[in-house]
Amino acid sequence: MRVALVIEYDGTNYCGWQTQKNGISIQETIEKAYLEATGENIKLVASGRTDSGVHAKGQVAHFDTKLNRPAESFKHVLNSVLPKDIFIVDSFMVKDDFNARCSAKRKTYQYRCYVDKNERPLRRRYAVNVEKGFSLELMQRGALVLIGEHDYKCFLASGSSVKTTVRTIYSLDVSLQGDEVIFTVCGNGFLYNMVRSIVGTLFKVGYGKMTVDELKNALETGNRKMIGKTMPPNGLTLLSVEYEN
Amino acid sequence: MRVALVIEYDGTNYCGWQTQKNGISIQETIEKAYLEATGENIKLVASGRTDSGVHAKGQVAHFDTKLNRPAESFKHVLNSVLPKDIFIVDSFMVKDDFNARCSAKRKTYQYRCYVDKNERPLRRRYAVNVEKGFSLELMQRGALVLIGEHDYKCFLASGSSVKTTVRTIYSLDVSLQGDEVIFTVCGNGFLYNMVRSIVGTLFKVGYGKMTVDELKNALETGNRKMIGKTMPPNGLTLLSVEYEN
Repeated sequence: MRVALVIEYDGTNYCGWQTQKNGISIQETIEKAYLEATGENIKLVASGRTDSGVHAKGQVAHFDTKLNRPAESFKHVLNSVLPKDIFIVDSFMVKDDFNARCSAKRKTYQYRCYVDKNERPLRRRYAVNVEKGFSLELMQRGALVLIGEHDYKCFLASGSSVKTTVRTIYSLDVSLQGDEVIFTVCGNGFLYNMVRSIVGTLFKVGYGKMTVDELKNALETGNRKMIGKTMPPNGLTLLSVEYEN
Repeated sequence: MRVALVIEYDGTNYCGWQTQKNGISIQETIEKAYLEATGENIKLVASGRTDSGVHAKGQVAHFDTKLNRPAESFKHVLNSVLPKDIFIVDSFMVKDDFNARCSAKRKTYQYRCYVDKNERPLRRRYAVNVEKGFSLELMQRGALVLIGEHDYKCFLASGSSVKTTVRTIYSLDVSLQGDEVIFTVCGNGFLYNMVRSIVGTLFKVGYGKMTVDELKNALETGNRKMIGKTMPPNGLTLLSVEYEN
């Protein structure tokens, strides 16, 4: 039986989703919890990796089990042994050809910022401080340029290689919510660090250090030189992953 | 020279404000940072203790120094050596008869809750999950009963002793903010655990397990039997402390 999990986690204390040599990953923590609770070894396949320090509200992963028990029971089994910064929101049976990574159609990320010269103890865990003086309207105009099907080569992190850098961004919203600036972006997939790089670039536009036309030009030519800095991981949360049906 | 500090901290990893035998306190962390940065030993006096796990956005403390430098510089000096979960918002000179504890006139606390059957990784650090099914209106009516000058003996934690249990609550607001239930209470002082006990009792009223009249009666008679449970520390934040002038 193939089972899908919807997972919420606070990524602060992990090296990211994927198991690595250095640090403890979300993936191995869940796999070990599962082994401890059921005695079965599984391998989790997620919709995609999240970096060290990145959070998730609705990461999706699948695994195969030979155990004969309701798929819904796995969330309770896992939550009873998982640490408090990882929570299985849901577990359910999926078809054998479902693949959390390959079947994913849309992903939505959120990036949170607050305006402050300094990093603040009560905000730093899930949001990143930014200097005042940016124009929200300019950032919103910049965001419009990035929506659609484009070659996002200019946001490709140096050294990373992929088959194609063409992706589709369905929506990219920049808004004030309370005293936070929140970026919500939905697309069919994202390059490594692309969301954090988009946010950094939109701030560059917002501070008037790059025009909307220059952003357009960077996107069209694939020129990385004008692109803003990659924002820190702690402001980023994978909100949800959508599949067909 | 006497210097006052306004301090923000994430209390999660501390045993509370006050130095104790078990665990690391906020107080000793700041005192040690100060010693490390200046070579001078100081003793901090705060407006009051906060418990293990309780946060502060505007705790106030004072200390005396023989160093001849601007009081404003101490915040920079301290922030350069403090861990990221403690931040000095401000430092300024005060009169020699200022006492962060004795001179405090009003304190404001906030308690945050979210409705969920389970504790969630991305919310648990600063808010507490509560079951649905409570009436916000009943809680607001209960809150009104508690405002004013009263003998809050019914909220006195068993085993604790104080000269008087009479306090004044100037305001006690219960409101929905986004998807959180937020309690904001301002008073001239609070008994040990009083705010967390008030929140637990207002939820008892909200769930219909205690009437507003029963709450009134408990307050008038000092009877602890009907009082609700003391809520967990992580939902509580000391927002501000006010002084005369």
